Formats: sequence, structure tokens, C-alpha cells
Amino acid sequence: MSLLAANSHQERIEHLPGHRVALAEDAPLRLTSGAELSPVTVAYQTYGQLNADKSNAVLVCHALTGDQFAAETHPVTRKAGWWSLMVGPGRVLDSDRFFVICANVLGGCMGTTGPADLNPETGEPWGLDFPVVTIADMVEAQRLLLDHLGIDKLLAVIGGSMGGMQVLEWAAKYPERVGAAIPLATASHHTAQNIAFHEIGRQAIMADPDWEGGAYFRSGKKPRRGLAVARMTAHVTYLSEPALHRKFGRRLQDRKGLSFGFDADFQVESYLRYQGKSFVDRFDANSYLYITRAMDYFDLAEDYGGKLAAAFKDSPVRFCVASFTSDWLFPTPEAKRVVHALNAAAADVSFVEIDSDKGHDAFLLNEPELHATLHGFLSAQCERTGIPTAPLALIEESEIGESEERVT
Amino acid sequence: MSLLAANSHQERIEHLPGHRVALAEDAPLRLTSGAELSPVTVAYQTYGQLNADKSNAVLVCHALTGDQFAAETHPVTRKAGWWSLMVGPGRVLDSDRFFVICANVLGGCMGTTGPADLNPETGEPWGLDFPVVTIADMVEAQRLLLDHLGIDKLLAVIGGSMGGMQVLEWAAKYPERVGAAIPLATASHHTAQNIAFHEIGRQAIMADPDWEGGAYFRSGKKPRRGLAVARMTAHVTYLSEPALHRKFGRRLQDRKGLSFGFDADFQVESYLRYQGKSFVDRFDANSYLYITRAMDYFDLAEDYGGKLAAAFKDSPVRFCVASFTSDWLFPTPEAKRVVHALNAAAADVSFVEIDSDKGHDAFLLNEPELHATLHGFLSAQCERTGIPTAPLALIEESEIGESEERVT
Repeated sequence: MSLLAANSHQERIEHLPGHRVALAEDAPLRLTSGAELSPVTVAYQTYGQLNADKSNAVLVCHALTGDQFAAETHPVTRKAGWWSLMVGPGRVLDSDRFFVICANVLGGCMGTTGPADLNPETGEPWGLDFPVVTIADMVEAQRLLLDHLGIDKLLAVIGGSMGGMQVLEWAAKYPERVGAAIPLATASHHTAQNIAFHEIGRQAIMADPDWEGGAYFRSGKKPRRGLAVARMTAHVTYLSEPALHRKFGRRLQDRKGLSFGFDADFQVESYLRYQGKSFVDRFDANSYLYITRAMDYFDLAEDYGGKLAAAFKDSPVRFCVASFTSDWLFPTPEAKRVVHALNAAAADVSFVEIDSDKGHDAFLLNEPELHATLHGFLSAQCERTGIPTAPLALIEESEIGESEERVT
Repeated sequence: MSLLAANSHQERIEHLPGHRVALAEDAPLRLTSGAELSPVTVAYQTYGQLNADKSNAVLVCHALTGDQFAAETHPVTRKAGWWSLMVGPGRVLDSDRFFVICANVLGGCMGTTGPADLNPETGEPWGLDFPVVTIADMVEAQRLLLDHLGIDKLLAVIGGSMGGMQVLEWAAKYPERVGAAIPLATASHHTAQNIAFHEIGRQAIMADPDWEGGAYFRSGKKPRRGLAVARMTAHVTYLSEPALHRKFGRRLQDRKGLSFGFDADFQVESYLRYQGKSFVDRFDANSYLYITRAMDYFDLAEDYGGKLAAAFKDSPVRFCVASFTSDWLFPTPEAKRVVHALNAAAADVSFVEIDSDKGHDAFLLNEPELHATLHGFLSAQCERTGIPTAPLALIEESEIGESEERVT
């Protein structure tokens, strides 16, 4: 069946490929808010084989609208996985050598427990009765999964954007379970501007009458228009002005002159409308509210007495932090704030600012300098851990082309 | 009466202070689109006295959501005029020496003909039957007003953001009628990113069921939620991240801890919600569509064979171009593009990049370096034109404080 056309969230989830496991069945997961969840279902995907001593596991943490399908044709959109340039045979996260795990985050809508799932107490979808979750709660759900898989220590944990927040949280909370931590295009807290853009998205969703206070599952409608506007807003923040200029400039869409109307005259308008509409087919509006909230709430220093360096005190973890010159959502100064804290904590840290005009989403795209840096960093980690190294495979032009449209 | 509580657009307009004049009654105004408008009512405000030889007139062009009330208590919001730091006795635009004119733009909603006004053919508000207007059309309406006032030549034309686009259009189209042109925080065309942010605002408005295809005047409702989201989106683009950080950071709104809900936890959320809601009381949603469209359509080079310098060939106008370091919506490279074209056209141009962390809206705020630069530039213009010069008056601290909340 086409999962794009699934009649309900439940129907779609049932037919998703990959793994799903119910965790926290005996002892509920206590969330940051104090609320408790039991069970916590985690949907995840793996690439490669876990070695005998379980030392080759790499956890990939996804961004706001990502999911567990990092490196395969996406079961709903039928597009290549969001990190297929990074994960696979001969890639930076080489599935011939590593056991790569990617789990849908808590609060998500691709099989891990979230607001679209059934509340066991009512038998109805949770909607806004779902407890607000944090980045730390997402990490706890992943930790339950690792316990379930019997993996004591990760070779590495890696992610960009919100994925990078999870990486930082992992390294801070479970330093003994993380060999290397690779936070990309991220920050140790959400800034006022970050919060502002998220709030616009939430207001757009909540302004849509079809949202119905979060209980849209009752009418069978979806707040399509509000969620599309939220997506459009976020989308613009993921791109740099040079990238938008290169892609679209002021070129007109299928017309020779201005229409003097409100149709999409410009290609960039048409593109944004398409991005908004297609997003609605694969994402749950309430999940969008919860996950943006989790990002807004993230403030790692706050959890350690206001001192970010305290989060990494005596850390045995090796860090590789990367930012992109044209990323204005998580700009280099935010990455440097993390690096300074790591330096202050005398942690082992490499930092690279990648020269790219692709904006925040550069971490998803073909950035050879990023790939080379991470490959080098991980090779050193392999040598320390007794895992074989291998050269990076060449990425095919066709794959790069396909990936150009990729977004967070 | 409180104009905030006016029952209809028509009732509000009738009670506005200032001048309104019906123009283009005999010969219709032919718009860029080819459509014709007659009459064209222009609502305007003046400050100071026109001198005997009519040589001291300064035209102020307002930005997207500005209006003619540049330097007085706003009749609807009861706040100080949007450019009260710039216009008034002893100010840069000294009303003791200059005759300052500020007119609501064509397509606006404060008395100049726009989509909320009655279509003479139907007796109903225009709504989306109003023709799409351009920056050039706005300038034509202002030109009709100057003809009406008997002013052949402006001492200066000045404006920021969309106001600066009008300034550039004035200088290109009517160089003989402009002594000095002062475009601030602007560009010679709207970029893909600029268009993208406007398109998000338009989509938010059009997604609101209360918009009713632009005919919301029939139900008496307004697309309040959509317009508020549009305003919030634009608002974030007017501020820099440092300004947002200084104003709000991650400070909580009236609470000691996170709520773990979707209320406005952070001050920046509460502020944005307030900005969205209060904007709806003073602005017409269809006007917002039309004016953003006019900005998106602006591409001065395109009107001159693709060569911006051709727009300023043999220009006798003196130019003073200013940009702000933290303005990411109309960044310095856009101003420099204008300056390079002016240089290529051998025009008389001064350029200053003001070091400010206030973002795009810096042109509205207390920026002593901007004020000093413009004062010096205008003093030279006065000397050439035989108009007395005078020192700048000091701006009171209380006025600066009041102005800090000002937005485009």
C-alpha cells in the first residue's frame, strides 16, 4: 500500500518498515516535566552489523522533522533517506564496519511514542494531553533502546541541528557510554531568534481552525494550512540567502512576465508552497508543536548550574564540533560557545567551521570537507577502539543531484 | 471617538486627521499592470511650512506597514509617530526649516486608495478586485500629489526599507524633480529570501478561513489569526539576533520555571504574540497582500534593460545611501549594489554603513551616527539650495525609550 495515502496515523505506523520495541513497560519513563510514560515505544532502523564485543555502534540522532529512515528510500515520501550521503557502505558512517542505529525521537510521529499515538488511558490519540518532552527525554528513550540492545558504549553519537542537541545531552549525561560525540550545526541552547521562528510555526498551526485545540483526530481533518505555513517559515531559515539566490533568484515560475495577481509568480514562491504542502502529508501537526517545544526548552548550561563547562567536567568523550559559515540559524558563534566550554572543561575537542553557502541544511548535503573531517575523526576513534578503518567511497553525481533538495 | 474601535474601514478613514485629496479625477492613473484608477485619493500629512519659492519640500516615503503619521501621535495606536526621532523641530528633517510631506502609499489602508476602499463600480470594498500596484505606481500617486501642491522639485526624498525603494524609483524616474535622494536600509530589488518571507505572510493570511478570498468585509470578520502570523514572521526579520538576545534572551514571561505546555513561556513568545495581535487592529489584511506584492515586484534594473546603472544615467541627483551592519533583510551588499550602479553612472553618491546591532529597524531608532550623517548631507544640500542650516537638537532620553519598541 502507499503509506502516503494511509487513512490514519495508526494505519501508517503499523505498516512502516523497520523495528519497533515497547520499552519502560515495568518501570515508567519519568520525564523532565515529572510526568511518566509507560510503555515507551521506540521505532528505529539499523544499518550494518553489531560486532561481537558490541563496540561498533553509532547512534544517529535526527533533526526536527527527520526520522529513523536515515539511509534508505523513505517509506512515505519514496525519496532517498535524509542522511544517505552520510550513512551506508563506504560512507562516513560506514555500514560495512559500523552498526548504525537511528531512532525516531520521543514525541515524533513515525512510530516512536508521540501525541498522535493512542493514550492508553483513553484509547484516543493523546493530542495535547501528551506530556511536553525535552531533548533530555528524547535521549532517555534512546538510552532505553541501547539498554534493550545490550549496547553499553557507543563508538560515536552524531547528529545535526536538533540531532546535535541530543549529542550534547548524551555526552553530558552519559559520558561513560559515549566514545565520540559529533554535534553538527547546533547549539547548547535555543536563542531568542530560534524560539521566535518556532513560535511563529506553532501559532500558524494553532491558528488553523482544523487544529481544533489539538484534537483534530476527532474530525478526521488535519490543520494542513497552518502546518504548511509553519513548514514554509522553518524552511526559509534552513537555507542561506546565497543558496536561495542560486536556486531561484527572481526567476519566474512557468511564465514570461509578472501576473499582477497573487498566484506564485516567482519560483521561490512555488517551491515554498510545494514544500509546505508535501510536508503535511508526512508529518503530524501536534508532533511539530512538541518537538519545536523540546528544542526551545533546550539549555544545557541551565541544567548544570548555568555553567556549560560543568556539563562536560572530566569528560572522557572525544568531541568533533562543526558549523557552517552560512548557517544563520545555528551560526558559528553558537558552536564556538560549545567549544569554549569543552576547552574550559579540558575535554578533547576538534572544531571545524566548514565554508559553505548552503545554510543550516549543509549538514544534510554534499559537503566533501565535512565528510573528510568526520571520516578522519572517526578513523582515529576506530584506531583507539580496535575497529578497522577504510577509505571513503566516492559519492555518485546522481546521488548528489538527488540530495540537493534535502531539508532538515 | 477611538479610531481603534471604528466599526469599519470607511468609518475610521473619515475620522482620520490630516489631509486627503482626490487626484486623477480627469485623467485616470494608468498603473504598471495596465489597469487604470480614477480617482486616486491620497491621504497625507505635512510638517512645517512650504517656503515662498517652494524649494524646501522633503518627501518622506514610508515602509510596508508605516503611514502618513510620521511625526505625531498616531490616531489609531496613540503611540508616537514612526519617525518622530527623524522629523520635527531641530530634527534631521527639521520642520522649522523644511516642509515635510508624508503620504500613505497607494494600496495602503490609512486613507490613500487601497483594497479596503469602495470600488466605485460596485459600491463594495475592492478586496482582491483592486489592481496589483507597484512601487512605481506608489511613486506616481506621490507625483500627482506634488503636482497638486505645486511643488516642482523636492529638496530631498527619503525613506527606509520599502520607503527606500520609492526613493530609488523617484530618483530614476524623475531626476529633475529630486534634489537629494536618501535611500536607507533598502535594495534595488527584492531578493529570493525577501520574497520567501513575504510569501509566508501572504500564505498565512490566505490560509485563514476568515479571509474569505479577500471578501472578509462581507462577513464583518477579519483574518486576524492569519494576519497576526504574517506580522510575527515579518517582525522577526526586522530584528537582529543580538537585538532579540538583548531584549529577551531566554528570559521567562511572568513565571519562575518552564510550564511544560504551549503557553508563552518565554518573553520573546509573549512579545511576538502581542505584536501580531496589536497589528491586526490597525492594518488591513488585503493591504498587506498588495504592499508585500509591490515590494516583491520591485526590480529597478529590470525596468532599465537589466542594467541598474542605466536607471541613474546622467543623474543630477545627490545620493546618500545608508545600510546597517546587523540588517540581514536588506544587508550592506544590497546597498553596495546600488552604490556601485551610481558610481558606474558617475552620480554624486555618499555611502555609509552604520555599525548597529538593531537590525533592519535601526533606521527607525535612535542611531546618532545615522542622524549626524544625514544632517551633514542635508546641510550641504541646503547650502546649495539657499535654505538655512541649523544644528541638530538633542533627542530626549524619554523619547528614545519610547521609540525602542518601534517597528517597520
